[in-house]
Amino acid sequence: MPHVQITWVEGRTPEQKRKVVERITKALEEEGRAKRENIHVAFLDVPATNYAEAGVVVADQKRGP
Amino acid sequence: MPHVQITWVEGRTPEQKRKVVERITKALEEEGRAKRENIHVAFLDVPATNYAEAGVVVADQKRGP
Amino acid sequence: MPHVQITWVEGRTPEQKRKVVERITKALEEEGRAKRENIHVAFLDVPATNYAEAGVVVADQKRGP
Amino acid sequence: MPHVQITWVEGRTPEQKRKVVERITKALEEEGRAKRENIHVAFLDVPATNYAEAGVVVADQKRGP
Amino acid sequence: MPHVQITWVEGRTPEQKRKVVERITKALEEEGRAKRENIHVAFLDVPATNYAEAGVVVADQKRGP
Amino acid sequence: MPHVQITWVEGRTPEQKRKVVERITKALEEEGRAKRENIHVAFLDVPATNYAEAGVVVADQKRGP
Repeated sequence: MPHVQITWVEGRTPEQKRKVVERITKALEEEGRAKRENIHVAFLDVPATNYAEAGVVVADQKRGP
Repeated sequence: MPHVQITWVEGRTPEQKRKVVERITKALEEEGRAKRENIHVAFLDVPATNYAEAGVVVADQKRGP
Repeated sequence: MPHVQITWVEGRTPEQKRKVVERITKALEEEGRAKRENIHVAFLDVPATNYAEAGVVVADQKRGP
Repeated sequence: MPHVQITWVEGRTPEQKRKVVERITKALEEEGRAKRENIHVAFLDVPATNYAEAGVVVADQKRGP
Repeated sequence: MPHVQITWVEGRTPEQKRKVVERITKALEEEGRAKRENIHVAFLDVPATNYAEAGVVVADQKRGP
Repeated sequence: MPHVQITWVEGRTPEQKRKVVERITKALEEEGRAKRENIHVAFLDVPATNYAEAGVVVADQKRGP
């Protein structure tokens, strides 16, 4: 432990995920007294039709100017 | 908050998901004192080989007459 | 299926949860072609120190005027 | 209940999943007093870039001799 | 990996959980080609007011004769 | 989005959680192109009887010398 599960809209590259993993693992080691070898991180990538905020799916969100 | 995660077998359309999102968001606002802008809903669509009920994966379930 | 998991800060009453369950179950039946007897809903209540938005735990959020 | 969610790297066959489902369902029935018809099991298959152990994504892990 | 998360109504003893863990771990090793040291199992115990099946929370379910 | 869920054995202080939240939120902003106000982090604290690694619950793990 711990087990970390990150649910977000697909589109991040393997390199971005690598960096997120490194920083989260380090944060849990340094601030959360977790042992590095027991830290698991999983990314659940979902399409933009499958994540909603404030009642609106990301696929339908208008981007501001 | 809250964060809502719905795991089910793939096959629903974006329009069906939109309607589910609207109704769940409204239910949490009206009955659960949640603020609309903080309500997140994620759908985890899995293939029919990846969800089982009563020991049987959905892909193997017999449909009754 | 589906399985619905709702993570939020503790404090809702059993009666509020009952109403949320009823409305989510109905929404999934009517909009998501789910069979009522297979719909599961679980609430994960966490203390206000255990949920953060925008980098701030709920226990530390300032309420506006 | 219970609801079981298994997050792992993709690559298992439907037959392997079937066997895992059978054994987990039986274990929960026999050791956990769960009713068979209410046991749900879901597999979340993720690519090898999306699961990390000890700060290293599975796609980058070196296999020992 | 894999990470296994089991959500159910509280009430199982540590001894019951120990047995469930043993059997699930063994099933994933033997049928799912998982390495024992990387298998994580977590139990999320919730009160009977926090789990619903078919629109009814477990706390309100009538037990048949 | 994203939604981050961290499952671990209870015992961390609110201050430790605060620091973990800050660092994870920053990592997702800087490396994952996430908008700060949409980043949610939840901690699921479980007792040491409820988390197992390599088939052994944390409550039963022997600490090495």
